[in-house]
Amino acid sequence: METMETIEDKLHEECGIFGVFGYPEAANLTYLGLYSLQHRGQESSGIVSSDGRELYAEVSMGLVADIFTRERLARLPGGIAIGHNRYSTTGSSQLKNAQPILVDFSQGPLALAHNGNLVNATEIRKRLEAKGSIFRSTMDSEVIVHLIAASREGDLISRVIDAMQQLEGAFSLLIMTKNQLIGIRDPQGFRPLSLGRLGNALILTSETCALDLIEAHFIRDLEPGEILRIDQNGMESFRPFTPRKCSQCVFEFIYFSRPDSDVFGQNVHLVRKALGRNLVHELPVEADIVVPVPDSGVPAALGYAEESGIPFEMGLIRNHYVGRTFIEPQQSIRHFGVKIKLNANKQLLKGKRVLIVDDSIVRGTTSRKIVQMVRRAGAKEVHVRISSPPNTHPCFYGIDTPTHSELIAANCSVEEICQYLTADTLAYLSLDGLTQAIGPSSEDFCLACFNGNYPAVKLLERLELAGEGRRS
Amino acid sequence: METMETIEDKLHEECGIFGVFGYPEAANLTYLGLYSLQHRGQESSGIVSSDGRELYAEVSMGLVADIFTRERLARLPGGIAIGHNRYSTTGSSQLKNAQPILVDFSQGPLALAHNGNLVNATEIRKRLEAKGSIFRSTMDSEVIVHLIAASREGDLISRVIDAMQQLEGAFSLLIMTKNQLIGIRDPQGFRPLSLGRLGNALILTSETCALDLIEAHFIRDLEPGEILRIDQNGMESFRPFTPRKCSQCVFEFIYFSRPDSDVFGQNVHLVRKALGRNLVHELPVEADIVVPVPDSGVPAALGYAEESGIPFEMGLIRNHYVGRTFIEPQQSIRHFGVKIKLNANKQLLKGKRVLIVDDSIVRGTTSRKIVQMVRRAGAKEVHVRISSPPNTHPCFYGIDTPTHSELIAANCSVEEICQYLTADTLAYLSLDGLTQAIGPSSEDFCLACFNGNYPAVKLLERLELAGEGRRS
Amino acid sequence: METMETIEDKLHEECGIFGVFGYPEAANLTYLGLYSLQHRGQESSGIVSSDGRELYAEVSMGLVADIFTRERLARLPGGIAIGHNRYSTTGSSQLKNAQPILVDFSQGPLALAHNGNLVNATEIRKRLEAKGSIFRSTMDSEVIVHLIAASREGDLISRVIDAMQQLEGAFSLLIMTKNQLIGIRDPQGFRPLSLGRLGNALILTSETCALDLIEAHFIRDLEPGEILRIDQNGMESFRPFTPRKCSQCVFEFIYFSRPDSDVFGQNVHLVRKALGRNLVHELPVEADIVVPVPDSGVPAALGYAEESGIPFEMGLIRNHYVGRTFIEPQQSIRHFGVKIKLNANKQLLKGKRVLIVDDSIVRGTTSRKIVQMVRRAGAKEVHVRISSPPNTHPCFYGIDTPTHSELIAANCSVEEICQYLTADTLAYLSLDGLTQAIGPSSEDFCLACFNGNYPAVKLLERLELAGEGRRS
Amino acid sequence: METMETIEDKLHEECGIFGVFGYPEAANLTYLGLYSLQHRGQESSGIVSSDGRELYAEVSMGLVADIFTRERLARLPGGIAIGHNRYSTTGSSQLKNAQPILVDFSQGPLALAHNGNLVNATEIRKRLEAKGSIFRSTMDSEVIVHLIAASREGDLISRVIDAMQQLEGAFSLLIMTKNQLIGIRDPQGFRPLSLGRLGNALILTSETCALDLIEAHFIRDLEPGEILRIDQNGMESFRPFTPRKCSQCVFEFIYFSRPDSDVFGQNVHLVRKALGRNLVHELPVEADIVVPVPDSGVPAALGYAEESGIPFEMGLIRNHYVGRTFIEPQQSIRHFGVKIKLNANKQLLKGKRVLIVDDSIVRGTTSRKIVQMVRRAGAKEVHVRISSPPNTHPCFYGIDTPTHSELIAANCSVEEICQYLTADTLAYLSLDGLTQAIGPSSEDFCLACFNGNYPAVKLLERLELAGEGRRS
Repeated sequence: METMETIEDKLHEECGIFGVFGYPEAANLTYLGLYSLQHRGQESSGIVSSDGRELYAEVSMGLVADIFTRERLARLPGGIAIGHNRYSTTGSSQLKNAQPILVDFSQGPLALAHNGNLVNATEIRKRLEAKGSIFRSTMDSEVIVHLIAASREGDLISRVIDAMQQLEGAFSLLIMTKNQLIGIRDPQGFRPLSLGRLGNALILTSETCALDLIEAHFIRDLEPGEILRIDQNGMESFRPFTPRKCSQCVFEFIYFSRPDSDVFGQNVHLVRKALGRNLVHELPVEADIVVPVPDSGVPAALGYAEESGIPFEMGLIRNHYVGRTFIEPQQSIRHFGVKIKLNANKQLLKGKRVLIVDDSIVRGTTSRKIVQMVRRAGAKEVHVRISSPPNTHPCFYGIDTPTHSELIAANCSVEEICQYLTADTLAYLSLDGLTQAIGPSSEDFCLACFNGNYPAVKLLERLELAGEGRRS
Repeated sequence: METMETIEDKLHEECGIFGVFGYPEAANLTYLGLYSLQHRGQESSGIVSSDGRELYAEVSMGLVADIFTRERLARLPGGIAIGHNRYSTTGSSQLKNAQPILVDFSQGPLALAHNGNLVNATEIRKRLEAKGSIFRSTMDSEVIVHLIAASREGDLISRVIDAMQQLEGAFSLLIMTKNQLIGIRDPQGFRPLSLGRLGNALILTSETCALDLIEAHFIRDLEPGEILRIDQNGMESFRPFTPRKCSQCVFEFIYFSRPDSDVFGQNVHLVRKALGRNLVHELPVEADIVVPVPDSGVPAALGYAEESGIPFEMGLIRNHYVGRTFIEPQQSIRHFGVKIKLNANKQLLKGKRVLIVDDSIVRGTTSRKIVQMVRRAGAKEVHVRISSPPNTHPCFYGIDTPTHSELIAANCSVEEICQYLTADTLAYLSLDGLTQAIGPSSEDFCLACFNGNYPAVKLLERLELAGEGRRS
Repeated sequence: METMETIEDKLHEECGIFGVFGYPEAANLTYLGLYSLQHRGQESSGIVSSDGRELYAEVSMGLVADIFTRERLARLPGGIAIGHNRYSTTGSSQLKNAQPILVDFSQGPLALAHNGNLVNATEIRKRLEAKGSIFRSTMDSEVIVHLIAASREGDLISRVIDAMQQLEGAFSLLIMTKNQLIGIRDPQGFRPLSLGRLGNALILTSETCALDLIEAHFIRDLEPGEILRIDQNGMESFRPFTPRKCSQCVFEFIYFSRPDSDVFGQNVHLVRKALGRNLVHELPVEADIVVPVPDSGVPAALGYAEESGIPFEMGLIRNHYVGRTFIEPQQSIRHFGVKIKLNANKQLLKGKRVLIVDDSIVRGTTSRKIVQMVRRAGAKEVHVRISSPPNTHPCFYGIDTPTHSELIAANCSVEEICQYLTADTLAYLSLDGLTQAIGPSSEDFCLACFNGNYPAVKLLERLELAGEGRRS
Repeated sequence: METMETIEDKLHEECGIFGVFGYPEAANLTYLGLYSLQHRGQESSGIVSSDGRELYAEVSMGLVADIFTRERLARLPGGIAIGHNRYSTTGSSQLKNAQPILVDFSQGPLALAHNGNLVNATEIRKRLEAKGSIFRSTMDSEVIVHLIAASREGDLISRVIDAMQQLEGAFSLLIMTKNQLIGIRDPQGFRPLSLGRLGNALILTSETCALDLIEAHFIRDLEPGEILRIDQNGMESFRPFTPRKCSQCVFEFIYFSRPDSDVFGQNVHLVRKALGRNLVHELPVEADIVVPVPDSGVPAALGYAEESGIPFEMGLIRNHYVGRTFIEPQQSIRHFGVKIKLNANKQLLKGKRVLIVDDSIVRGTTSRKIVQMVRRAGAKEVHVRISSPPNTHPCFYGIDTPTHSELIAANCSVEEICQYLTADTLAYLSLDGLTQAIGPSSEDFCLACFNGNYPAVKLLERLELAGEGRRS
């Protein structure tokens, strides 16, 4: 049965993690946190809690609000909890790959939630299997718990550091035991992880929008390479790694994060508006209206409209009820594609020169359908503007981009893409336009998907890994 | 268990109806139509189809995309179908009240889908029960099928006319038998009903956005009082009623309909923008940004921003995953209210003079929470602008407004409401501003919720009916 | 998808009804009662309760223990309740045909549960439809509520009597309103209905085994034609009908009822043993072991063994987990048929002369498979004995027998059947053997399925009705 | 929510395992096998299949027929499969403890299904954890896959032998990889495992009744200590262990196995009848009828009746629909206990001297309720006979008996038990009566639950282990 979960060719999706220490109903708070982070993963969701004596787990396929009934939340007692939303793909979607991972090892029960993608997981896994380890999932994250359990170090923090030294790639982690919560960002800082406070409770979250919902206060972002341990004695930070070049993921700004989150020190909506402002100067064109592809294109379109003076208009309407599985009916009326998600408002578009703003193009198929839809609605001209540079290289750190051969910008020139989209003009934001919008901190970002400068991974490995497709 | 399906005090919701004649997989098309009309009702959904020999029904609680699995659609064969989305309330929500209603009567099986609210249903029901009729639901719509079945007239159209002559109130209807489809708008034209064409198939739909999804062409709106019969011989219209004053529901423009629909001859988004433009002149104020309450407030806010020159900004973010049931966890962290649906983006609001645009205020509780949220986010001033006049009178024709005592504008002055909302200023659109935005056709609208001029219903009846709360 | 709910050709199944008046948690008691009566119907189950103000209904497809969760029972408050188990057929199985039926009529809400089959339902329905009535189901039972609602009589009992005078066929009924419970047996007494007491509460039940579970005391059977009204003033009986010849269904003894029930004044197990004793004399044969087809054949086999002196042996084992839906896997290993339900114990059968005792043969296909299974298990001879006469005529009063053409005994001689079964010998109990086992009351039984003497229905009607297949 | 899954104090339950090699739709056959073995475990069920390239798993809580929809079976392709039914307990019932266990290790994917209980699992687990292993379940079975994966041996059989040498306790195992199936019985042969053939396919099953259903032929039982490897080259047996004293579980005869299975070389029904025959001589008493506690007491009661000449009668009726979860309603009508499962037929029991035959007594609470129920039904005398010796010692090899303190026979004399049961007399079968019924092979059985002679486990370990409660 063909579903339409991924009718857009936006496959950039990610996981969300959320943890609480010291709140009487930690699982309930985690539930709310995961609800705010739903956009980072819709495939599965799970919470593990601790009452100091035992760890309790509820993990299931589906959306946060569907999974966590009151009955289920009631089975998660205690004042410590971590949660995880896993993103949605077709195919490898199985309960065994849902997180948090809960295991018993020599020091008792341990749970782990991982956002990011390890680039040397296969290598580590083979090494561990050769020593007699068994694996229960296809997640790269499973190697982390093995490394912690197999470490010769004594206390948990030492074991964690030992494990981290063997990992390469992106990993924001939450680890919990019966009486402690540990937050970790990898030394290159690929993925965000923020610290907040609600009364006496401490919160760790992928994005700050989850702090807003529960009315917690933002304290600070964890630093790249930082290990923050929280237990009944308070917080303690460990920074065992030599500082490396930071490689924060620029796509958190472009697409992943919610606009009302502050990520890597900046407000996402404002960065997106700045991207849109800069985009005006790439290939100026006369147009009657600026139309965003909702919802991710809205802030850049607002920036574009403000900078250009061309009126902003909601010429494309998004169906609110998309997000859940949509089953295409019989053969004869199939292929509704993007129409299920978006509809063009003819009365706004007809006879107009329309400038569409979107955040990125992956395969190009969706953008092409949007252009055609706008033209059928009566637009006189259709200009496409993309608020990020051409996506020419696959990502190995957690973005589910297709392989090189599927990335249209890896294989076609901008003119060819424009032709494929059937647009009148097409322009991308330049790399300069991107870094200027981000500001001075832009040096701390990974731009590999635009320029191929992969941080720290040798090319050979990359190609090898490209065939795998395991991420979390 | 307390759910949050109705966390907003916007209870203005409605039913959606959709019918097809002459399409090989009529139920599949109806499924797509209902999907487009999901915003008109989320409580239950149903489709009845005909293959010329028999009528097949699938009716269930829940959302269209959840109910209609491929297996279920396969149980709905044939070239004629009608569907219905029922709106969501707390309490009386039961499967027996879902539509379409399917019955057997002396001329065989008949299905009916109703959008609107009858004001004399109780009276008719009592009369029918006295004659020996039994009722299976609490829907006012059930009296219509009784009246048709009990009519002494011969053919179906005559029976339908006979029934219509006894009905008072709002009713856009779809009626189907084994081999015909009938579309009806009540003589006052309260609710919309449009006719479209897809190849040789004819479509009837509450809103035109459903035509867009299936790539059908809009033909025309049904006229008030028109009965349109479609069978294998084509279409035939019956207009048995003396023309009455038209009473189209103005809330279809203000809130109900999708912005990309053309309703009562105008594009909803454009009317809303015009409302926003006119709103600028009600109580001009200096502000830094215009912020819509998403999503219904967006078009009016765009109009306001364009007219006033104050920048438009998405300072409130709507959670995409709301719309499904959200279960509030334990006592201690309850009452998230509007925060589950909306979040304020502090970075955009702090230090600003914020002008919030919303479409209406019912009880005022949600608006108050929004004002407080914006203020907590750091706004220096909070001005509220409503793109419709004060909602002072309850509706008896299908809008689920609370009773008189719950309508804040029926009991408080604008100043008092402003104080309750904790806003700096509050202004509503004037009735003149409203009618001017709608244009010359504004005479054909029911404005009773603003001015109490109820079309054709005596006051006594109204008060009597107010206690009932049965609608569809 | 082919299921195996009816892998036996025993289609004799029935409905079960249970009612309570005056017990604080009447729905809970009804739940237990329905659980005891599960053997009378596995398709759907429902309970309607009253707290004196309102009627509450929970009706669903499936088994009693699956349907009635604690949450669902909690939605059925009050001290009066009736419940219904509907038997399972393939095809017409739909929720709209589940009972109790709950309607509103001129005197308020009324619920009805029906066991039996009306033979003039179609005729009445046509008459009612001609007068303007609408029907929501295909159940014959629906005409009863229509007749009560449409009666010109004043109080409910008079309306019920009025309705009963128009009904022909089998009907044991429970009717309830907000504050009364009415039990009814049709004037010919086709189906059982017993009265019991638990403390101050009064119970009405299809079979006495339900009284045992709740530790209620049996008071008496309702009389044919009796209408027993229970309200806060106590019980009152109405017997408005001239006594007619009684036509109790003999299959309640042969197959339907649980062996631990007392039905029509006798213990079912003891009657079945007597049938088995008498069967010994029909065609005496030398055999090594008497083997019942479990579970319904056990009592007759015990009677046979005791009377004949041949050892009783459990040579066929019934799978406990049958009763629920069993999905046959792929094509290649299909057609397990009776093997899913029964297995032959080779060690007991091999080399033996086996005498199988079963209660009846309908189509013969199951019996044939059993004979073949026993022979493959190594039996030297296989003799089949049936503890009822040849089933030569279809039933119109509630037993779901196939039409005349499918009844093997209606079309073949005993010798031909024996040959078809591949048995060595076959004998049925004679009509005399049957009536002798029942004793003097045997005159009060309907034996039409054996001798074609249908009580009170003209042959023409019967044939006409045979095509319908509506029962409850 | 309190359920009644274990309302009897018969907690003797077990797991069932079934494997297929070389059948085109191996999973479908496994489904049928598990269906036949449902009595050995109702908590969860799972199947793993292989198409030579990959292993596919479907594991879920619930009953076989509910879990394996056609859709789910279609996700299990290939010609090799193993399946597992897990028994039902309250509390520790979780999906993570369901089997088969599927892991990846250095040689690829491996699945394992285990029937039995290891007595040194905790010790092994601690040792493995100390070396860095992580555990995902609380099943003792999980240590087996760890030992295989961690073995320094090369090929799989050598690793399996290596692992087996470290295990102590009961284990019948099925192990499969992409292209082989391995069957194992522990050196003491606690649990059964039989080999059968269907065409060219080979079958391994806990009981032979599963062979009957699929019409496979029984070949032989696996020998204690035998490792049977099946791959495309055929079968090969390994017997690496020095022969030890055999310790077959006598409770397979007394209670676990289906009567139509041949276990440990004998037919279960016939052994049970022999137990019943011998029981006559323990404490002869005059009685009017012999009544079994259905269904497990039936064969022994038949043996008793035949030997004693006292008539056999089905005085207790078992509700067919028990086996599924039964939810007890509200407080006030709780504690139906055994009445939900059994009902006494008063008409058979009243005024009689009744001799009840049951297979065993664990806590005594159920037996007491049965005696009381029979007495309330009017029995003049109630004599209880148990077809096994007093159960005085807990089992550590897979029978879920309560601890020493809960076993009534470990703490009370027969007279005291008789008094507790409120029976007139009580007699157990003697150990001699038991061994005589089993015959010469009785030396190969573990009788520890009757005489405390635990095979090979030191007392200290036993006591330590008794607190754990992990079994499979």
